[in-house]
Amino acid sequence: MSEPIIDNVTDKVEKMEVKEKSKDAVPKEKKEKKSNKVQLKTPKGTQDYNPRQMTIREQVFDGIKQVFKRHGAVTIETPVFELKETLTGKYGEDSKLIYDLQDQGGEICSLRYDLTVPFARYVAMNGVLNIKRYHIARVYRRDNPIMTKGRFREFYQCDFDIAGTYDLMVPDAECLVMICEILEQVKVGAFQIKLNHRKLLDAIFAICGVPADKFRAICSAVDKLDKSPWDEVRKEMVEVKGLDETVADKIEKFVSLKDEPMKLLQHLRASGMCDGNKDATDALSQLETLFGYLECFGVTQHILFDLSLARGLDYYTGIIYEAVLTGQDRVGSIAAGGRYDGLVGMYGKKDVPAVGFSIGIERIFTILEDEYKKENKKIRENATQVFVVQMEKDLIKERLAIVSELWKAGINAEFSYKVNPKLPAQLNTADESNIPLIIIIGKSEVETNSLSVKTMHDRKQVSIERLNFTDKIKEILSTIPK
Amino acid sequence: MSEPIIDNVTDKVEKMEVKEKSKDAVPKEKKEKKSNKVQLKTPKGTQDYNPRQMTIREQVFDGIKQVFKRHGAVTIETPVFELKETLTGKYGEDSKLIYDLQDQGGEICSLRYDLTVPFARYVAMNGVLNIKRYHIARVYRRDNPIMTKGRFREFYQCDFDIAGTYDLMVPDAECLVMICEILEQVKVGAFQIKLNHRKLLDAIFAICGVPADKFRAICSAVDKLDKSPWDEVRKEMVEVKGLDETVADKIEKFVSLKDEPMKLLQHLRASGMCDGNKDATDALSQLETLFGYLECFGVTQHILFDLSLARGLDYYTGIIYEAVLTGQDRVGSIAAGGRYDGLVGMYGKKDVPAVGFSIGIERIFTILEDEYKKENKKIRENATQVFVVQMEKDLIKERLAIVSELWKAGINAEFSYKVNPKLPAQLNTADESNIPLIIIIGKSEVETNSLSVKTMHDRKQVSIERLNFTDKIKEILSTIPK
Repeated sequence: MSEPIIDNVTDKVEKMEVKEKSKDAVPKEKKEKKSNKVQLKTPKGTQDYNPRQMTIREQVFDGIKQVFKRHGAVTIETPVFELKETLTGKYGEDSKLIYDLQDQGGEICSLRYDLTVPFARYVAMNGVLNIKRYHIARVYRRDNPIMTKGRFREFYQCDFDIAGTYDLMVPDAECLVMICEILEQVKVGAFQIKLNHRKLLDAIFAICGVPADKFRAICSAVDKLDKSPWDEVRKEMVEVKGLDETVADKIEKFVSLKDEPMKLLQHLRASGMCDGNKDATDALSQLETLFGYLECFGVTQHILFDLSLARGLDYYTGIIYEAVLTGQDRVGSIAAGGRYDGLVGMYGKKDVPAVGFSIGIERIFTILEDEYKKENKKIRENATQVFVVQMEKDLIKERLAIVSELWKAGINAEFSYKVNPKLPAQLNTADESNIPLIIIIGKSEVETNSLSVKTMHDRKQVSIERLNFTDKIKEILSTIPK
Repeated sequence: MSEPIIDNVTDKVEKMEVKEKSKDAVPKEKKEKKSNKVQLKTPKGTQDYNPRQMTIREQVFDGIKQVFKRHGAVTIETPVFELKETLTGKYGEDSKLIYDLQDQGGEICSLRYDLTVPFARYVAMNGVLNIKRYHIARVYRRDNPIMTKGRFREFYQCDFDIAGTYDLMVPDAECLVMICEILEQVKVGAFQIKLNHRKLLDAIFAICGVPADKFRAICSAVDKLDKSPWDEVRKEMVEVKGLDETVADKIEKFVSLKDEPMKLLQHLRASGMCDGNKDATDALSQLETLFGYLECFGVTQHILFDLSLARGLDYYTGIIYEAVLTGQDRVGSIAAGGRYDGLVGMYGKKDVPAVGFSIGIERIFTILEDEYKKENKKIRENATQVFVVQMEKDLIKERLAIVSELWKAGINAEFSYKVNPKLPAQLNTADESNIPLIIIIGKSEVETNSLSVKTMHDRKQVSIERLNFTDKIKEILSTIPK
């Protein structure tokens, strides 16, 4: 066997980590190459995730999956596109944001807009009667992207839903506990879950004298109260939606109410505001059951019973909720959901009641990435445990034999892809990748059938036997502090 | 607090597992509902994965990721669609299989066809000089789907690539080791990796007298030798591609050669077949280096040096390889790859040489699912460790408090979503989901501040203290055989 042929390459590209140009550098390059090269960019509103971002993302996803599994959830996957008719009529005026595939003959398809509609289609199509499932996947909206705020055209959703005919408020309560567990798990700071009941809201509209055919329109006006002051919302109700002024003023008395769950419930009962409306007293009784369960679960302190919460989507039929961050500089929705008992029935023969939520995972990433940047946190992008270094020339085959034994023993190991790499370059790679242990092989080690082993955290070096060395390496790795 | 309101629901929908109708049931339902409901199906060539399939998939993906991480790989993610121009001119005549998004104003985009082209675009766009990355994601081809054979329009690819300027054949050898490790990891039986060198193949064409402008056409004819006999391929060369008959016969002498790597290498040298052609002797010398490394890695027994291997894609520039299953009833390609040193340069300013492979993961799933079905293997779809059961009525709040403590202790726990579930129904759920441990709470347990705990594998029941019970549960769980 002859000696390996060595390409004439320089040392400067030795390092294994990803080197990224700043975003600013891209347009310049693009301009230079315009003549004969394609545009170097991802489509508007989409982005690549680099290894650093992926490491943060996978940690967060793993933590959230842990919570889902703690509650017995299974997972499913559905196609990225659906028949267009599956999505039609589910998103109201937002339907204009749906991405269609080009008609290239055959079926007309669109990219999924959320994970809830495909879930309902799945449940109906497969005749599922009960399922507790999570689904973490990307969805697509031709919205105006604001990348710095975590608003994209292609983005992850992280959904959990319980479908099945169960007793009142039991799965609903578990969903609320899970939101609390997840938000504590991902460490984005203080939060609060605003909660309301669609039936109570409709009953309030009836009590105030809103005509039944204006319920949804007034509901969607109320939904704006988290961003606009009452005066503006009132104006929309009266001037745009033709509501009587005295009716609007009555609504204000209700939607300005928010408090600890049991406290506001008792106030609503004691005040007699809802007396005589059966839907309202039913909804209050249902909420009392829910609040009782939430007390057992020990999460009441996170819940705000808020009569101004309306939620945009039409398909909710029971409780609705929205988690918001309450810490400094962190305003806005971070998770939301509710009960929708009619959606599956729009596809299948059977109504399958369901309740669930969606975590605003992109906002969480934006917050975490900013924090990591601010704190200048080091993140390990790979999981390499051992780097095998040669001290002198012509030891490539010894290195290959060593890493090969490490891999067979299940140890994560790397080595330089150069035949005769310089020692500083090898040590540099190990150092920059935060690899905790290096194995050094030189001529003296070959002669004495030994290996030198250096633990990087304490810079201590020991000599071990070459024969069956991987057990010793595992032993040393187990003593390294994390 | 009042007692919870109980919906009038029956017991029969108690079970938590997914009930699925057979696929045959779907068209019937579809027909019945045609009038007012949408078609209940996924688009042609796509499919849902149910919890059982997802469990198998996640196990396989986790195993493969372990191999990638063992070799120090990082991961990236790219958008599901790219600018159409990014994909144009990369796939030859297969470009007609690309899915386009509808032109809804703005950029013209297409769904990704593979993960290699987006990777090359990523490397060029971000000025990456070195990266060892894996990417597991779905790709899209408007091909004729054969679902039973694992051929879909939306399917997973599982890619690994090493980009960077390194010494000859070192990363190439590691890729081949990794394919071996992965195929052993997923347990699909015996396999062999056919290997050839693009430059050697071109040199052979030159030696035989193929005109230089016919190299690629003749190469793509040779590529068919794994499916068609020589006579047919010869006919294509002569009649369709206008090759001289004597030239075709010379080619046959070469492409019929296959043997153990070093053995065939020595034969080619000893026979003098390649003498006088510098490209051929260079390629043989490169292969000698590779084979030496593969010996150090201990994988030579899996490699077949096969001069008939051509690989369809134009962009390969060095070694090419294809893993095939050799076990009974399992023919066909399961992984493939090679060196492509020019692709990144098509996007960016710099050429970044690269080598990599793609695992045919859908074929692996088809094989594994068939096996699981044949062996009637039980698969746990959820990870629930404890199911909390009530013996008598009106203990819902006790159950909620118990599961709540379990969750806080990080223990995966479930309970019935009915207020007063029947005992057999509860035990049935625990049994069908293979939950290893049940906690039983009845009036006597409440009175004595205790819990009854039953391990399902040995049906033994013990009584433990209610106070701080989770530590004891963890202890018991740790003794249960897996």
